[in-house]
Amino acid sequence: MEQILSMNGGSGEQSYANNSIGQSTCLSRSMPVLKQAVLDSCCTNLPETVTMADLGCSSGPNTFYVVSEITSIIYKRCCQLGRSAPEFRVFLNDLPGNDFNTVFQSLPAYQGKLREENGPGFGPLYVAGVPGSFYGRLFPLKTLHFVHSSSSLHWLSQVPPELTDKANPLINKWKIFISKTSPPAVINSYLTQFRKDFSLFLKLRSEEVAPEGRMVLTFRGRTTADPTSDESCLLWDYLGQAFQDLVAEGLVEEERLDTYNTPYYEPHPEEIQAEIEKEGSFTLDRLEVIALPWDSVNGGIKDDRATTAKRMAKAIRAVNESMFRSHFGEDILDPLFHRFIEIMAADTKEVEHVSLVISLIRKT
Amino acid sequence: MEQILSMNGGSGEQSYANNSIGQSTCLSRSMPVLKQAVLDSCCTNLPETVTMADLGCSSGPNTFYVVSEITSIIYKRCCQLGRSAPEFRVFLNDLPGNDFNTVFQSLPAYQGKLREENGPGFGPLYVAGVPGSFYGRLFPLKTLHFVHSSSSLHWLSQVPPELTDKANPLINKWKIFISKTSPPAVINSYLTQFRKDFSLFLKLRSEEVAPEGRMVLTFRGRTTADPTSDESCLLWDYLGQAFQDLVAEGLVEEERLDTYNTPYYEPHPEEIQAEIEKEGSFTLDRLEVIALPWDSVNGGIKDDRATTAKRMAKAIRAVNESMFRSHFGEDILDPLFHRFIEIMAADTKEVEHVSLVISLIRKT
Repeated sequence: MEQILSMNGGSGEQSYANNSIGQSTCLSRSMPVLKQAVLDSCCTNLPETVTMADLGCSSGPNTFYVVSEITSIIYKRCCQLGRSAPEFRVFLNDLPGNDFNTVFQSLPAYQGKLREENGPGFGPLYVAGVPGSFYGRLFPLKTLHFVHSSSSLHWLSQVPPELTDKANPLINKWKIFISKTSPPAVINSYLTQFRKDFSLFLKLRSEEVAPEGRMVLTFRGRTTADPTSDESCLLWDYLGQAFQDLVAEGLVEEERLDTYNTPYYEPHPEEIQAEIEKEGSFTLDRLEVIALPWDSVNGGIKDDRATTAKRMAKAIRAVNESMFRSHFGEDILDPLFHRFIEIMAADTKEVEHVSLVISLIRKT
Repeated sequence: MEQILSMNGGSGEQSYANNSIGQSTCLSRSMPVLKQAVLDSCCTNLPETVTMADLGCSSGPNTFYVVSEITSIIYKRCCQLGRSAPEFRVFLNDLPGNDFNTVFQSLPAYQGKLREENGPGFGPLYVAGVPGSFYGRLFPLKTLHFVHSSSSLHWLSQVPPELTDKANPLINKWKIFISKTSPPAVINSYLTQFRKDFSLFLKLRSEEVAPEGRMVLTFRGRTTADPTSDESCLLWDYLGQAFQDLVAEGLVEEERLDTYNTPYYEPHPEEIQAEIEKEGSFTLDRLEVIALPWDSVNGGIKDDRATTAKRMAKAIRAVNESMFRSHFGEDILDPLFHRFIEIMAADTKEVEHVSLVISLIRKT
């Protein structure tokens, strides 16, 4: 999983950089929670160097957006309070397959822009890239003051092991994610894996985050208790249907489809709260629901169903392509998303795209 | 310069990774000095997390070699002394155009190998990539315990400005580096730029390195007082001759050649010592000369002149290609190195490839 998952790199037509408007909107909508957390942390004594990490930074316009926001808020607040502003150290983390080259090559221009926007007293800002899974330790003990993660924590560390058991796998027939037709054991295996991963994430970060340090985490989630509702599953069902059509056309073997499951989960707020309480290192300061409209992939403009379907296909492809390619091969990608567009365009259902944003404080 | 210079990325035939045997040999030869510096630093109280930086890490087999050596020496020494071993934090630095993706993708396998070689008590080892020029600040104040740099500090921050003055440039006729035919003002401009850059490097690192912290720096240098001797200039003269031939053939405009100069300098030990004393933040603990045989590019095997010339052409191309391409265009690269091989193969001169290794201690 760590070796395979990566958002599409570069800045071309199929790149994540050009197809992440949904993630970008979600990030903007999480800003009030982020700003509050940053301003709260300014009330205490700031260290000489404020160290922050963005986990799952990817490559594209979203990568530096949060860094700009956090550092500017702190800098302006210090100026208002007549305090000397701190240095900033920023760690951009993602899996080793992420396109860090593109991120790094845009860094000099970005640094110049930040200085220009904030004035000559701003900084210095030291940026480093940290390759590795956030389901493992990434930083030395108590070295982080601020952790941010957006559109990443819905990715599990692995497909639930019950689904990949060589001898006796659970079969999620015709599907690539939880669906109404999924056996309860399949749904349960996803929940169990999520609980394990999220709890591990909290434990690892509790070691890395300094006392009173903050985390603001935004990730896909759900508002309905039922994990098989359209809210969570509609787009995955379209994809499953597209795969089934490729099986019918002989382009994908049935057994290939039956052995593919997406390492992804959309938790309910209660599932999140329960794990935070059980793990015990962090206080949950805020939890908010971000519900984006069905056609948010169009940048807020109402468009016809076929156009929305095309944009949605690109957005899903930029995120899932690396995993689909690894399991099914390069050749199925174009026909798969061609079918996806037809299926989605022919349907009339609409759902909101739900994310959760949580703000956590490391207990002292 | 910062936007242009980068070693050839990837792992293909023309890559730096596959054409850096000279740099690799030089690095091996600097090991006794490095080991002594690391062991000396183990005599004092080690911090809980030992933080080190490799400046100009490039991408290829050399990138992780030094990290392995330094961390293993410290770990074994702590085991011998019955002390608890520290965590390690490693910052790999190079210019933003460096192929960090290749470095990062080889990291998981490398981490596994290190644990296997050293045993389960080793680490953790936290690795981050830092894009930026070492002629600017890269790290917060007093955060580094160990700095290493190999085959990088001979690169200047820019071509001496006298040579690029738009109105009245100094002309280094037919040459791309210091040569016997260079006017004294050209040679002097190179020395002035080197002094400025090396002094700036020391000042910047003096801010980043903790008291009693160490630096071991290996870079190309010379043993003769005369900066125009064959020891420093022979290969650059072959290259200059190859460029002149391209001018004669009409492939390169004369004015293009006259305005190209390599931002590179090979200092004499006395020039180094003078700058260290003048800057004043570091004590020079050791300075050694590493003289590699003429055909070290063959991996220590004596080979015929034509074969050596071919390997030398690849090694020089892996390092200089990005700058040549930027100034002269892609098309001249193949004919240029074709001519270089003919010119070098037809000559009989041999020189040693000289590097200097210096070990420095941050004054308290």
